[in-house]
Amino acid sequence: MTYCVALALEEGLVCLTDSRSNAGVDQISVYRKLHLFTPSHDRLLMVLTAGNLATTQQVMHWVERDLKANGERHIGRCRHLFEAAEYLGELLREVQQRHGEVLRQSGVNAEASLILAGQVGEEDPNAFMVYPQGNYISASDTTPFLQIGESKYGRPIMARMARRDLSLADGARLALVSMDAVQRSNISVGPPFELAVYRRNRFELDQKLELGLNDEPYRSLAETWQRELQEAFSRLPRFDWE
Amino acid sequence: MTYCVALALEEGLVCLTDSRSNAGVDQISVYRKLHLFTPSHDRLLMVLTAGNLATTQQVMHWVERDLKANGERHIGRCRHLFEAAEYLGELLREVQQRHGEVLRQSGVNAEASLILAGQVGEEDPNAFMVYPQGNYISASDTTPFLQIGESKYGRPIMARMARRDLSLADGARLALVSMDAVQRSNISVGPPFELAVYRRNRFELDQKLELGLNDEPYRSLAETWQRELQEAFSRLPRFDWE
Repeated sequence: MTYCVALALEEGLVCLTDSRSNAGVDQISVYRKLHLFTPSHDRLLMVLTAGNLATTQQVMHWVERDLKANGERHIGRCRHLFEAAEYLGELLREVQQRHGEVLRQSGVNAEASLILAGQVGEEDPNAFMVYPQGNYISASDTTPFLQIGESKYGRPIMARMARRDLSLADGARLALVSMDAVQRSNISVGPPFELAVYRRNRFELDQKLELGLNDEPYRSLAETWQRELQEAFSRLPRFDWE
Repeated sequence: MTYCVALALEEGLVCLTDSRSNAGVDQISVYRKLHLFTPSHDRLLMVLTAGNLATTQQVMHWVERDLKANGERHIGRCRHLFEAAEYLGELLREVQQRHGEVLRQSGVNAEASLILAGQVGEEDPNAFMVYPQGNYISASDTTPFLQIGESKYGRPIMARMARRDLSLADGARLALVSMDAVQRSNISVGPPFELAVYRRNRFELDQKLELGLNDEPYRSLAETWQRELQEAFSRLPRFDWE
């Protein structure tokens, strides 16, 4: 599995992915799941991938081929970010259709999900989740984060803390503590983690980090969080029967 | 769905269940999922249920029928707690086999899972999870908690905090903050929550609470936890790029 999370904040975007890919528990590899595109001076797009690795690789190959061919339709041609989400959804559906039936016969699921996060021109930065069916939903003021992959373990802390007005640094901290909850609970999600921070209207990344469990700032952040949670737990109110 | 969690601690047992049952999102009802049996002065058993409601109800009806019939085999006859888990697993498998094929044709899953927690005679109190297939696993020194139902949202905090030497009150607090994470994330898990606390060698419950979201101690516990988490988050270390 995989865990990817993106925050669409007032200040900009935060994207975080793990990099573990597995077939069962004994064929574990490291693959990048965060793909950056800066096709022109006024657009920056990040694609995060989860699900069947062959599917996501082929989708990304097609994205790159279309971009190089520089024809009528590619990820840099969109007038709006949602049009790039439409484009990705169509590619995703086509790859799955091409291989889905044969894979089903082998008991393998061809499905994949994507997150697209970026800024196009003067639009607000935003993030979209592209479903295996090819349709999409956008982040919103009330739910400024999107997750794909093994998302449940890391959801409660996102749901409690994520707000549009978080700073980019707070957004990055939040994504990392969410990732920490996931990687502790699920062996199929693992380091290194790729963190990308984008400040609005810059059209280049502000920060790009690749973090192992023992790398700073991941280690001190995870250790502090564990200690703080234990102390918070110790301060919970007593029952009247104690 | 459902969320049930049990802790097998040195001091005794903590069991917590939600009570929401749903078919889709528009047919929501309240059903108890915590069933208590005290068949004799030296045994206490709790059964927590998740999954297909018709399956779990029929299993519990059979358990009660066998107990009343007082024949050769019933939940109070076991010499060891694991034998009661075996017995429950057999009933569970039989009910599922009886209805499984017809339900599958309607696209309905007949499966259910159980947690059995209790003490039999001089044995240590313990907890077992009974799988839909009828086999079981036990809580252990390294993993003193078991979950069934919508368990992922509430797992990280359990994995971080659960230890055999927690007090019963700390175990109850931990189960409740885990439940709080689940019920915030998943509409199919809801109040009232049933909490049962058992102190070893007593053979009767120490505490039995039914808690709505606005009932004390649930409300103050959930509010304190939310506030403490926010403060803990604000104390996380800064990045060097801030």
